[in-house]
Amino acid sequence: MTTRALKSPLRLSEVDNPSSLVARFGPADPLRLDCGVELSPFQIAYQTYGELDARKANAVLVCHALTADQHLANRHPVTGAQGWWTTMVGPGRPIDTNRFFVICTNVLGACMGTTGPASINPETGRPWGLDFPMVTIRDMVRAQAKLLDRLGIDSLFCVLGGSMGGMQVLQWAASYPERVFCALPIATAAKHTAQNIAFHEVGRQAVMADPDWRKGRYAEEGTRPSKGLGVARMAAHITYLSEKALHRKFGRNLQDREAPTFSFDADFQVESYLRHQGMSFVERFDANSYLYVTRAMDYFDLAADYGGVLARAFQGSSTRFCVVSFTSDWLFPTADSRATVHALNAAGGSVSFVEIATDKGHDAFLLDVPELFATTGGFIDAAARARGLGPARLISEGMVSGLPQERAEDRIEEARPARSSSKAGSGR
Amino acid sequence: MTTRALKSPLRLSEVDNPSSLVARFGPADPLRLDCGVELSPFQIAYQTYGELDARKANAVLVCHALTADQHLANRHPVTGAQGWWTTMVGPGRPIDTNRFFVICTNVLGACMGTTGPASINPETGRPWGLDFPMVTIRDMVRAQAKLLDRLGIDSLFCVLGGSMGGMQVLQWAASYPERVFCALPIATAAKHTAQNIAFHEVGRQAVMADPDWRKGRYAEEGTRPSKGLGVARMAAHITYLSEKALHRKFGRNLQDREAPTFSFDADFQVESYLRHQGMSFVERFDANSYLYVTRAMDYFDLAADYGGVLARAFQGSSTRFCVVSFTSDWLFPTADSRATVHALNAAGGSVSFVEIATDKGHDAFLLDVPELFATTGGFIDAAARARGLGPARLISEGMVSGLPQERAEDRIEEARPARSSSKAGSGR
Repeated sequence: MTTRALKSPLRLSEVDNPSSLVARFGPADPLRLDCGVELSPFQIAYQTYGELDARKANAVLVCHALTADQHLANRHPVTGAQGWWTTMVGPGRPIDTNRFFVICTNVLGACMGTTGPASINPETGRPWGLDFPMVTIRDMVRAQAKLLDRLGIDSLFCVLGGSMGGMQVLQWAASYPERVFCALPIATAAKHTAQNIAFHEVGRQAVMADPDWRKGRYAEEGTRPSKGLGVARMAAHITYLSEKALHRKFGRNLQDREAPTFSFDADFQVESYLRHQGMSFVERFDANSYLYVTRAMDYFDLAADYGGVLARAFQGSSTRFCVVSFTSDWLFPTADSRATVHALNAAGGSVSFVEIATDKGHDAFLLDVPELFATTGGFIDAAARARGLGPARLISEGMVSGLPQERAEDRIEEARPARSSSKAGSGR
Repeated sequence: MTTRALKSPLRLSEVDNPSSLVARFGPADPLRLDCGVELSPFQIAYQTYGELDARKANAVLVCHALTADQHLANRHPVTGAQGWWTTMVGPGRPIDTNRFFVICTNVLGACMGTTGPASINPETGRPWGLDFPMVTIRDMVRAQAKLLDRLGIDSLFCVLGGSMGGMQVLQWAASYPERVFCALPIATAAKHTAQNIAFHEVGRQAVMADPDWRKGRYAEEGTRPSKGLGVARMAAHITYLSEKALHRKFGRNLQDREAPTFSFDADFQVESYLRHQGMSFVERFDANSYLYVTRAMDYFDLAADYGGVLARAFQGSSTRFCVVSFTSDWLFPTADSRATVHALNAAGGSVSFVEIATDKGHDAFLLDVPELFATTGGFIDAAARARGLGPARLISEGMVSGLPQERAEDRIEEARPARSSSKAGSGR
């Protein structure tokens, strides 16, 4: 794996001066973290799409996954790629930006403008590095809540997200039930399992084993632990795909050759693909942020904050839930979602549960999976009506004619892109 | 992960002067490899247990997995640990050394005495390193066949092994059907899948990313890519266990502490366990060998040598097969074994198939799994009778009294160790 630094300067400039909206919180407004530290100052980088209605009742918070960011429906300022969830969010999409005001924040600890280990520690004038306090999923959600306070949004119509985004959804519903009208946790779990932790630990050890990591001080020392971070990404990437998806995409196909070379070249397409995943990842992501955000996921165990009983996290909640899992997701298998559903049932919550049959693995939440769009669109539309939000503007303005307005699923089917790319490079 | 070199000198001495039997093959007797190279000279290190009978009819070849070696039923000369398959092979065990002459060779490309990249290249006087020719599973089997020729053993009563050992079993049955009376491939596949290759590629990239690897010249340069190899082992180790086994063993238990430390310490037991696996592995295994032997597995695709039709590999064979898989093995899932069974059926072969219910994952073949011992013992005993080999000496000498000799399974139950260790550190 070569150490390229092509877009590194651009990425670094995003850390403190992101190409998005930024909310800065000064000394008077610290963020209390689970580890006990009061983080101050700090900033939250975020994007919005659509318009907040007069009642401030149509706000939707999208929570991103491990290595994604706030650029969910616009071109990415570093990679130039399209947003990571344009299939789900946009005009006429299941999360219709003609109808909803969509907010997405870069999570605490990440590297696209929200404060994290790559940010400058004001006390030293140097990047935080490993001096940055450990953050948790609950801390990420606390930071988001402070942003909403700043924006004057008391209550979210919906919080949704996949994978680590789904963890934030569950934490939102538990921490601020009165602020969440409906919640859509996708391909996620209320706690990280031993296997999940194990894969993350391998990734962290790969980063830390790279001598260019310099105990986290690489930015000041002019190095980059690209090889270690690349290996971490390769290992993680395997877990995002199902064995069937890998077989379908690559099988044992050779890469641009007729026969094996009997060497350590990337003979197989799957090797070439993985190496590419590793190399492109290091262009856009900070190694220390990778350590912090994986750790936040490992620490996530929602029930632990409620005496070990997950149902207590949702007791008395009137939030409407739709829990979604994918049959071939072995990183966050359906059993994890079912545990959440059981807890919601035990708490007397309102919950529907959809297990979507697909061979695309964990990545399915980022891909063109019609049943996911239909499920999301149907759930969102029903909830919006229950909240007294009007039908999508597109529809009400008659721009999509001939469709019966009652059948939300059909409308979503219609609005879905005919054939979106199956690439999911930066969404988690 | 610290770079310790405690037992390194001992390990290195095993490369050329192993603590086991060695067969040396000189210039007159080269080994033709699949890559086209004629390897010469070369040597095969091996262990034997039990005695060859007068007809030379009771020889059993045990093929080892990825990182195991010939020391299957004696203390390991480097680690001091007991042999990796003492539950399966020994007096009164399913492979009863009172009855059979058991041979186990260190595979070609490995580092415990059989020629591999750590051996001295006679042309340069330096270790081969990456100048060592690429080897395949078929090459490993060819080398074993040359050893049997040397020992004057025309025909093996049985070839058995798990994981990569099982690949060798299938290759033996395909390459030398007349030399294999019965075959027992366990937890294996007739080809490596895209996911299998992907995990191996991550491991190789981890090794090669370590600057102490020195493009494979670490031995001469006085370094050791321990960190990279440790990370490779950690990633691989996760694939050897099932999610359930990890949950049962570790769950989210903390390591010697009451609460998370909010740091990158090994807070969780599973992290501590994985780090230990990585560190102990590098004490006993050579990094270049890891590259070569993983590559051999990746290249394995038995059907490819037979026009893409696996059944042709076994056409006309009179070998008796017993194919074994484990329900929770996601590295070599039952579907892989089923594909072998279907091919054997299509070829008109004699095959029985046992899928063993266990939550121990791929590692089950190395662990205390009573049904595996019963299956193996029953199959071996029936085949031995068919070949006219007498009953186990223990039994015939009346040392186990009161057991009807017809019921092989019962005898095996009796002979099994009451409670063997569930550790499987060096068997694959």
